[in-house]
Amino acid sequence: MYIGVIGSGQCDNKTAKIAYEIGRNIAKKGGILICGGLGGVMEAACKGAKDARGLSVGILPSKTRKHANPFIDIAIPTGMSEARNALVVRASDAVIAVGEEFGTLSEIGLALKMNKPVVGIGTWELSKEGKPIESIILVKGPFEAVEEVFRLVR
Amino acid sequence: MYIGVIGSGQCDNKTAKIAYEIGRNIAKKGGILICGGLGGVMEAACKGAKDARGLSVGILPSKTRKHANPFIDIAIPTGMSEARNALVVRASDAVIAVGEEFGTLSEIGLALKMNKPVVGIGTWELSKEGKPIESIILVKGPFEAVEEVFRLVR
Amino acid sequence: MYIGVIGSGQCDNKTAKIAYEIGRNIAKKGGILICGGLGGVMEAACKGAKDARGLSVGILPSKTRKHANPFIDIAIPTGMSEARNALVVRASDAVIAVGEEFGTLSEIGLALKMNKPVVGIGTWELSKEGKPIESIILVKGPFEAVEEVFRLVR
Amino acid sequence: MYIGVIGSGQCDNKTAKIAYEIGRNIAKKGGILICGGLGGVMEAACKGAKDARGLSVGILPSKTRKHANPFIDIAIPTGMSEARNALVVRASDAVIAVGEEFGTLSEIGLALKMNKPVVGIGTWELSKEGKPIESIILVKGPFEAVEEVFRLVR
Repeated sequence: MYIGVIGSGQCDNKTAKIAYEIGRNIAKKGGILICGGLGGVMEAACKGAKDARGLSVGILPSKTRKHANPFIDIAIPTGMSEARNALVVRASDAVIAVGEEFGTLSEIGLALKMNKPVVGIGTWELSKEGKPIESIILVKGPFEAVEEVFRLVR
Repeated sequence: MYIGVIGSGQCDNKTAKIAYEIGRNIAKKGGILICGGLGGVMEAACKGAKDARGLSVGILPSKTRKHANPFIDIAIPTGMSEARNALVVRASDAVIAVGEEFGTLSEIGLALKMNKPVVGIGTWELSKEGKPIESIILVKGPFEAVEEVFRLVR
Repeated sequence: MYIGVIGSGQCDNKTAKIAYEIGRNIAKKGGILICGGLGGVMEAACKGAKDARGLSVGILPSKTRKHANPFIDIAIPTGMSEARNALVVRASDAVIAVGEEFGTLSEIGLALKMNKPVVGIGTWELSKEGKPIESIILVKGPFEAVEEVFRLVR
Repeated sequence: MYIGVIGSGQCDNKTAKIAYEIGRNIAKKGGILICGGLGGVMEAACKGAKDARGLSVGILPSKTRKHANPFIDIAIPTGMSEARNALVVRASDAVIAVGEEFGTLSEIGLALKMNKPVVGIGTWELSKEGKPIESIILVKGPFEAVEEVFRLVR
């Protein structure tokens, strides 16, 4: 199972800790971690996966892999800038969104468009005409996030 | 000036009328209309541009141009599926979002990530931790939308 | 009809003159010129199209349109680097290859893979096991190139 | 080190045997095998890598990973059709070309354009104005191919 972790390239310690636990739990459950390959949420999740002896793939916006975070196992440079966001989502069976960044918002939209489950922690809230849209499955913590995402993919 | 019109491939008459007026006004102001090339909001906007003797470009997800709406002047098939959303946004100096579809949400996210102005009519509302995020400039009607988007790009 | 002109971003005067005549003849025949949007062969072809009041589209590797040559009518920045070569070919019903550059070689391969006619002037010669492969229709001059490419697409 | 193996999605037994040995030797030398993820040359190379306990990555043209060959460890569906050829090359530090298919030709062109070493076995021969162009390092067999490609990347 391929689980995408989407989130900002920079984040505070609290968010990093959540992302780390998400990566660790994906790996412990035998999932392959897909992400955008950079810092912040992505790096913390990869570190978690590595600490649990899992496998992580980073799909980078740049032409080379030199900007990949040091915990990535497989770094795929694309040279496609933000168009790579669609590849991160495409390669994932479901995604976990952490935090509130515009790139993350684009990935949430792409995942929902592709009918892939989106689980969120502290992420964007969407409404239409004042009414909340509950397409993102909101969870409280990293353990619940990973449980939920595996349940939804199965 | 290249103005993107992003919205659903299917829409009701009221939304189509708004999209038509947006397309018409972009053309009247000398803008080039960029869109995803399909039906619904995209088709109505292209029809408006055509009626005002403007130029429209459709960047299609498919491998061929046979699914382009009949009002497109330049149809660019990409064969890239949803990854073409990033191209629609990249080719636009600013975008006008009409309606509430997940593909549109992804394009809003991409435009904001690329620091391009986003003007919206009847579109997604974004919040973080319960507080509205006002990154999308909300307007009431198509004339105001086009005025605003040209003002923001200049 | 959409005709791609593929060739190097830098070229000598003789090659530029050929590319100019190709662009001019595509436009005179009512074709839309597709190219990579940069200098050299692409720029000369666009100038030819403009002088014959035709329409040209440049699909750029960069994130912005500032590197587009000055004769492009519709500049589509992609931010996708060399991956945009596939878009140039995809958007063309057939291509004319001018000169011998590696990017051009990749576009020839992509066009043949997509079953699109490839007409060549002073371009790559291909062989397998010492035997020439005649997948590229070689022509002597720009007029013949454009005649041939229109004939093949019809 | 990431080594790309590029070649046709269908091939005869003799070519498959060569591709198998290439994959096996890349893995034995600790390289990560990058390919297009389909059958033929790609499948044989992945089988070789698997038999030597290596790691292989398949970057697929399709939207889903269901067409990935059964020996792929990491399958990355792109939904980008032939535009994914640029990703296969971008993700490789150097490529080994096996056989003579148009998609392979496009990848050779892209690799040379990106200044990446190209080693070839029984593949395209290129000339300009009747003179052979020796940009592809031709080798006789799979062992030599892998030796050469590692030497060139270092």
